[in-house]
Amino acid sequence: MAYSHFVAKQRNQAEDAPWQSEQALLRRIRSRAGTAGGGALRVGIGDDCAVLRPRPGEELAVTTDLSIAGRHFRIEWHSPESIGHRTLVRGLSDLAAMGARPLTAFLSLGLPRTLTLQGQRGSAAWMSRFFDGLLRLAKAHRVQLAGGDLAESPLAVADIVLVGAVPRGRALLRSGARPGDLLYLTGALGAAAAGFRRLARLKGNVPAKIHGALGAHLFPQPRVAQGEWLRRRGLATAAIDVSDGLSTDLAHVCEESGVAAEVEADALPIDREATLEQALHGGEDYELLFAAGPSARLPRFIAGVPVTRIGRVVKPKPGRPPVALITGHGSRSLRAHGWEHFA
Amino acid sequence: MAYSHFVAKQRNQAEDAPWQSEQALLRRIRSRAGTAGGGALRVGIGDDCAVLRPRPGEELAVTTDLSIAGRHFRIEWHSPESIGHRTLVRGLSDLAAMGARPLTAFLSLGLPRTLTLQGQRGSAAWMSRFFDGLLRLAKAHRVQLAGGDLAESPLAVADIVLVGAVPRGRALLRSGARPGDLLYLTGALGAAAAGFRRLARLKGNVPAKIHGALGAHLFPQPRVAQGEWLRRRGLATAAIDVSDGLSTDLAHVCEESGVAAEVEADALPIDREATLEQALHGGEDYELLFAAGPSARLPRFIAGVPVTRIGRVVKPKPGRPPVALITGHGSRSLRAHGWEHFA
Repeated sequence: MAYSHFVAKQRNQAEDAPWQSEQALLRRIRSRAGTAGGGALRVGIGDDCAVLRPRPGEELAVTTDLSIAGRHFRIEWHSPESIGHRTLVRGLSDLAAMGARPLTAFLSLGLPRTLTLQGQRGSAAWMSRFFDGLLRLAKAHRVQLAGGDLAESPLAVADIVLVGAVPRGRALLRSGARPGDLLYLTGALGAAAAGFRRLARLKGNVPAKIHGALGAHLFPQPRVAQGEWLRRRGLATAAIDVSDGLSTDLAHVCEESGVAAEVEADALPIDREATLEQALHGGEDYELLFAAGPSARLPRFIAGVPVTRIGRVVKPKPGRPPVALITGHGSRSLRAHGWEHFA
Repeated sequence: MAYSHFVAKQRNQAEDAPWQSEQALLRRIRSRAGTAGGGALRVGIGDDCAVLRPRPGEELAVTTDLSIAGRHFRIEWHSPESIGHRTLVRGLSDLAAMGARPLTAFLSLGLPRTLTLQGQRGSAAWMSRFFDGLLRLAKAHRVQLAGGDLAESPLAVADIVLVGAVPRGRALLRSGARPGDLLYLTGALGAAAAGFRRLARLKGNVPAKIHGALGAHLFPQPRVAQGEWLRRRGLATAAIDVSDGLSTDLAHVCEESGVAAEVEADALPIDREATLEQALHGGEDYELLFAAGPSARLPRFIAGVPVTRIGRVVKPKPGRPPVALITGHGSRSLRAHGWEHFA
């Protein structure tokens, strides 16, 4: 970990940036990093590595997600707060899919020089607002920013690493689904894709009051509490987060579990602003898709979020795509075809 | 963790890239990731997170380092093997500075499409050669690649995350140096900077047989065994890796320990191809700089690498730079001024 690297490098590049202000930058990040993490963090920002002390009987879940300007966000459309939030949500959602309790985050951030400068005339700097968005979500989920790296980069890139804790041998995996299991989904699908279309039409002129699909795209909520609930109850045989789209992520579960799946189109919880295509392939909804045995009794809501049964797990057929969509007109194969916003 | 993300995204972007070949890409990375890590890795590539099981009584050290084309490497000068090696060495060196035993690595890789394509006429693809360099070094240090993320990016970026293990409360920190301690350094300084100058003169036309400073720049060796030795013996009061240059990294130790330091110019082990300036500010040498009490008896070699006493820790003086360089002509303050290759 090397926020200190950044300090060294900036010093050489900018004769006009005094040592004092760079030290101040590092101090600001350190002071804002918080002190959550449930006491697991023994050494935080300021050394070569962070040191984590797991509780006895716990394993650690680790995930990393890379966000790149022009692919995962657009500087000219997304607010800095939204980009910070969206950077962190990708990692938190991976932890949710394992049923892990978030502990610490690490952020590697490459930014053009223009985005690291102090704001003019009292306006908050881009980087400060980025951390506002990231740290607000971190606080809501009791995650401590424990380190990372900073570098100047012609292209804005952010790689987020999340470390979570899970009782030994109890992580929810993609690989446990069995024929006969039923498939469930938290929340609704397609909102993030519909919200992105709206953002594109607005060309970034986002209204002050954000709601509906636009809100779901700009500030999606990871299903951390729902994942932990499923892990504690031991009901789910397999789980994944729907970050790449239902068709893609369900195919991953099928591949890792060695099964196939049938999805009932009429059962899908589709956001009111979204189309069926956006629900099937949209991605970035960060809902949890999970399988449970046929006798498992799932509540209608988990931690305030609705749960819907959307299909079933079946035996795979050789040479056939693993996921089928059942409609009023019969069955058709559902090709994995995740939505790619910026392609 | 989401190598699977990459599979999904590539599928949408390239009509000419069949599903089979993308699955093959993921399988190739998985199959090459190895099975080291000392049994700590319970779930590897293929799920939303990796799951690590620490040994009882051990803490985990976590570090992340971002490498960006044009700043940390040049596609047109550095071979793919060197870029892969240099990406990993940054994280391994951070673990070495804590005295941690490497367990697993996570790699987030953003690459232009041209670098992900299969090679023509049997030539190995760029990405395959990048993994050759990275995984060769990983194998040498028994590190398992446990996950990461892949994305198409107009600019090549690689963020490496290393997780290591260290006995509870025994990590070497930057913060333990005390006035009266002596300062030591492994190996020699300045070779990486001198080697980079040579690379620049060669404009990437690297001879088949690489040696000396050029080798030190292209394939630096992290001092993992030396860090573990120091941690086991309990001799070092503080440690850091010299990745940003002696002047910068010694200033970090002084700041975190609340001390000052004197370096004897005549005592510095300077690589035969390097200048004093390169030795003081060059960076990327990945040697260990550490402090030890005045009565500690250090050997002349640790795990085959020479150890040199280069100075001492003293009390800080208010308003004075923390590091002084002692020469035959007296003492001058040594401003933190790390070398920035691509600035």
